[in-house]
Amino acid sequence: MQFEYSNPTRVVFGAGTLPRLGEIVRQYGSRALLVIGGGSVKRSGIFDKAVQSLKDAGVAVILCDGIEPNPRISSVRRGAALARENKCDVVVALGGGSVMDASKVIAAAALYDGDPWGMIYHGQPNVHIPTEALPLITVPTLAATGSEMNCGAVISNSETTEKSFMSTACLYPKVALMDPELTISVPQNQTAFGVCDLITHVTEAYFNGPGNTPLQDRFAEGVILTAMEYGPKAIDNGEDLDARSHIQWAATVALNGWVSSGASGGYPVHMIEHTVSAYHDITHAAGLAIINPAWMRFAARTNPAKFVQFAERIFGLKSKGSDDLDCALAGIDRFEQFLKSIGCPTRFSDLGIDGSLIETYAKETLRIINDGNGKLPARPAMSEADIVGVLKAAL
Amino acid sequence: MQFEYSNPTRVVFGAGTLPRLGEIVRQYGSRALLVIGGGSVKRSGIFDKAVQSLKDAGVAVILCDGIEPNPRISSVRRGAALARENKCDVVVALGGGSVMDASKVIAAAALYDGDPWGMIYHGQPNVHIPTEALPLITVPTLAATGSEMNCGAVISNSETTEKSFMSTACLYPKVALMDPELTISVPQNQTAFGVCDLITHVTEAYFNGPGNTPLQDRFAEGVILTAMEYGPKAIDNGEDLDARSHIQWAATVALNGWVSSGASGGYPVHMIEHTVSAYHDITHAAGLAIINPAWMRFAARTNPAKFVQFAERIFGLKSKGSDDLDCALAGIDRFEQFLKSIGCPTRFSDLGIDGSLIETYAKETLRIINDGNGKLPARPAMSEADIVGVLKAAL
Repeated sequence: MQFEYSNPTRVVFGAGTLPRLGEIVRQYGSRALLVIGGGSVKRSGIFDKAVQSLKDAGVAVILCDGIEPNPRISSVRRGAALARENKCDVVVALGGGSVMDASKVIAAAALYDGDPWGMIYHGQPNVHIPTEALPLITVPTLAATGSEMNCGAVISNSETTEKSFMSTACLYPKVALMDPELTISVPQNQTAFGVCDLITHVTEAYFNGPGNTPLQDRFAEGVILTAMEYGPKAIDNGEDLDARSHIQWAATVALNGWVSSGASGGYPVHMIEHTVSAYHDITHAAGLAIINPAWMRFAARTNPAKFVQFAERIFGLKSKGSDDLDCALAGIDRFEQFLKSIGCPTRFSDLGIDGSLIETYAKETLRIINDGNGKLPARPAMSEADIVGVLKAAL
Repeated sequence: MQFEYSNPTRVVFGAGTLPRLGEIVRQYGSRALLVIGGGSVKRSGIFDKAVQSLKDAGVAVILCDGIEPNPRISSVRRGAALARENKCDVVVALGGGSVMDASKVIAAAALYDGDPWGMIYHGQPNVHIPTEALPLITVPTLAATGSEMNCGAVISNSETTEKSFMSTACLYPKVALMDPELTISVPQNQTAFGVCDLITHVTEAYFNGPGNTPLQDRFAEGVILTAMEYGPKAIDNGEDLDARSHIQWAATVALNGWVSSGASGGYPVHMIEHTVSAYHDITHAAGLAIINPAWMRFAARTNPAKFVQFAERIFGLKSKGSDDLDCALAGIDRFEQFLKSIGCPTRFSDLGIDGSLIETYAKETLRIINDGNGKLPARPAMSEADIVGVLKAAL
């Protein structure tokens, strides 16, 4: 077991903590670029409360609104220009994963003279990896991506039909202000997608790592069990603040390094999904819900022991031994049933996507990321034919 | 669920990483106070390797040796004076919890003109809480206290028969360099005490918190299950590097905030043990092994549900319901049997300590820390009579 871990983000967690936003932001700057999405935070009243708190603390607010789902590099460019023009010295992300991801890249792009698309890894030879960014405060309004407490961001380029990522230390938010009350207004389907998203973050690390990480496995299973216990409660009753709190913390922990350190070896489901959603602009977690079970059935054949462990510890199934593929597959079936039960699609046909571009998705995924031998990093590493096979199984 | 979490310590984990010490330390300074204990690191050859790595990186080494178990404030004073006289700009702790705890206070005391005992909370009205310290790199040689990745330190004062703590942000190590190979030479009994120590850190948070922290519970259970699986393997075969790795990481995670955030409400077993070991200079974890089961039997009567959960999830027992005290107590019996099985004492008589000072321990514990109403913070809060009752049950 070999790894390095570092995560300097400070967490302030609890219902009713939004009014502390101004005091926290003021520790880092006095002119905030406030980044939001399509306006749901305005309709819910969250926006007004956040602005009031910032103004009460003497923080000037420059608004960058309209960040779209699957946030685009064009929005990043616009936000960075706004930050520069208005001499912003701090960025506040008030929204879901798209808003937080865009805000990270805006925070770095504001201090970078080149085009920010050059910072996004998309298979180009020379990526510009920034070493500085404006301080960022994240205020998530959705329990899903975990972006509030990590240094990753996923950005789309509609001109080139690409969706890819960046991940570097200067993107860690200074503070994640997590008020579960802000997630009360999230509709049922988005709540369910968030649960799927956070579980998929965990399964990627759990199944693709080098193995021999028993404590990380326990943590991963803890996140999944918690999400499966409280996710349906939050979906059934959006005002269940306890359930909202528990899935929000689970979503953060799913991707802040606590589960994956020493255990991660690739994010194949995410990488494949990014390509598909670059073409179709589907909800990220909907794509994950479709691809993940199909990928699991593929991977279980070479790594049955880990899938048996999953079946036993998550679903209480009993195996005949660590090579019991039937038990492994039964666990995957149960997982897929869970995704269906909370309202996620589990086949591309549920979204009206046919198989006509499957080879393109596979080629494009491998163009953006491969291990140098033409395979997608994963356990097992995936050839183009493997990716095609998984996608066909998910039609 | 309300909490704040922050832990900026960077972790470099893996067998064979010790030679990176110099390169890491050089990022923070060029004149290192190297703090060690009684000399076991010299006998094992670890000391020479560490010094070589530091010198190769151009780091001057000033040695502070002889830190004793239950480290004393007199050693802190000596180390701080050495650091000042030699203009050290970085501190390296190479040893177990005692060395790391002393190093933290030395790092702060080197920048503080007053007597460092004034920084240790011991019931005095005006504690000096430092806001700056020399950068600290921890290199643990024992899986036990978790001190390598937290901001706490426990220090004894033999002149006043007091043992107490400090905990503040400037004490976070910059880097924890964790090389499980360094723990290979730890003898069986110290390995077992380390396992007991780390489990007790987790049970304190697990049982004393406000409840309603399901994910933290899963993490706590994960640490305990991992320690109970790999602890006996490391005790049976000290050269089992996998087992050493897993208990070392478990020990770190047990007290770095990942388990306790939002879940902690007091450390009664530690607080009582500190008083006892201030009088008897016993190994900290031996005291914990004796007091913890007795405390659990006391606490289970007011909080049976959590102890039933412990019995079910850790030992696979089946309860008749969340108020099944018999099941709760059976789980505690199983836990005590585990401690015995790895060679820990579970009664004061095992250490030759009689009951003559029990009232003194109780009074002194409450003098050092109480909730303002004369009770020890815990679930349930403990009166003097409660503490006496627990100690009597452990004779």
